[in-house]
Amino acid sequence: MKKISEAVVRRLPVYLQILNDLNKREVQTVSSQELGNKLDLNPAQIRKDLAYFGEFGRKGIGYDVNYLIEKIRQILKLDQPLSVGLVGAGNLGRALCNYNMYLKDNMKIMGVFDANPSIVGTAINSLTVLPMEDLVSKVAELNIRIGIITVPAGAAQNVADRFVEAGVSGIVNFAPAILRVPDHIRIHYADFTRELLSLAYYLEKEGDNDNEPAVD
Amino acid sequence: MKKISEAVVRRLPVYLQILNDLNKREVQTVSSQELGNKLDLNPAQIRKDLAYFGEFGRKGIGYDVNYLIEKIRQILKLDQPLSVGLVGAGNLGRALCNYNMYLKDNMKIMGVFDANPSIVGTAINSLTVLPMEDLVSKVAELNIRIGIITVPAGAAQNVADRFVEAGVSGIVNFAPAILRVPDHIRIHYADFTRELLSLAYYLEKEGDNDNEPAVD
Repeated sequence: MKKISEAVVRRLPVYLQILNDLNKREVQTVSSQELGNKLDLNPAQIRKDLAYFGEFGRKGIGYDVNYLIEKIRQILKLDQPLSVGLVGAGNLGRALCNYNMYLKDNMKIMGVFDANPSIVGTAINSLTVLPMEDLVSKVAELNIRIGIITVPAGAAQNVADRFVEAGVSGIVNFAPAILRVPDHIRIHYADFTRELLSLAYYLEKEGDNDNEPAVD
Repeated sequence: MKKISEAVVRRLPVYLQILNDLNKREVQTVSSQELGNKLDLNPAQIRKDLAYFGEFGRKGIGYDVNYLIEKIRQILKLDQPLSVGLVGAGNLGRALCNYNMYLKDNMKIMGVFDANPSIVGTAINSLTVLPMEDLVSKVAELNIRIGIITVPAGAAQNVADRFVEAGVSGIVNFAPAILRVPDHIRIHYADFTRELLSLAYYLEKEGDNDNEPAVD
């Protein structure tokens, strides 16, 4: 398979969300034009993205929704079990744990940890919040490969260090802080306010003469 | 000013986060190479992005962190007040309200609404959760231009309709559902699990090389 660019990989979860939604509404095929409208990308870009991992569109018919879902899940390796650990059982941490339920994928949050003794021992759905002291042993026991950080910015580096020490392969950091991790650890920054902040650009431009975004 | 592409606009909040972090650590200048490392983009792309809105990098010195922060805030119009409303005072809604405190920007959540009578009247920081019946009047009163949706997927379309009826200009939807809105409303989809899902792609690739079984 051709190497898939980072930008395309980051769009795959968005494709997946849209396709899952179409599937729920029992839509069986979708054109690159329709996907483009939903994603705010031009159809040529969509076709180019999907061509990275093989040709499944059919002229005049479009893409088979179910097949595309399966294919993207395979590419993202969401068809295999993948254990996730989360540190920081605050509002955002809890929201992410709740999201667990939506995922048909095998990627699941298996352990939740918090440094606050008054939160340790409480339940989030089927998970019990564990103390930080258990992090290293539980990461090994549950084969946790990804660590999610949902603690305040000031505590994030320490949590990242603990995850690295415990042996995870990747980290998703929701704290508004840039973290230092060894080169062999992959870190993704999840800024859940990005879409909010970028929306302002388009709104205020309304007053100007031309607010059409350029396509690249 | 040259038209800024959608991809660049979406990267601006990320630049801003990184620059704010550098600023907090009292770093005064940053090179495109350093920004590139932090953003996982090549320095040429960084220079191209920043050139969209004028030249502020200086050869051998780099970019002035403070100046860049101010400039990006101006471009995103975060230097002007912008009122935001939020429907859905669950965990994610509360996390976003807490994030309010971090923002030095003038974009603030000014009204929080929920359909659940047992949540209405409770406080989130300085905000009191309001009933849905107040949405239209409060959007006008508080000059709310952006609506955030943090309700379950099944309720999201109805909330979007209410926001449109109330007269917002833009919507940020966190619910895992595709929504129909009139053409003059700008909608951004905020998938707060995107970075998590795309991380799997990179992790599993690791295994491909070194522990692929020899048999099939």
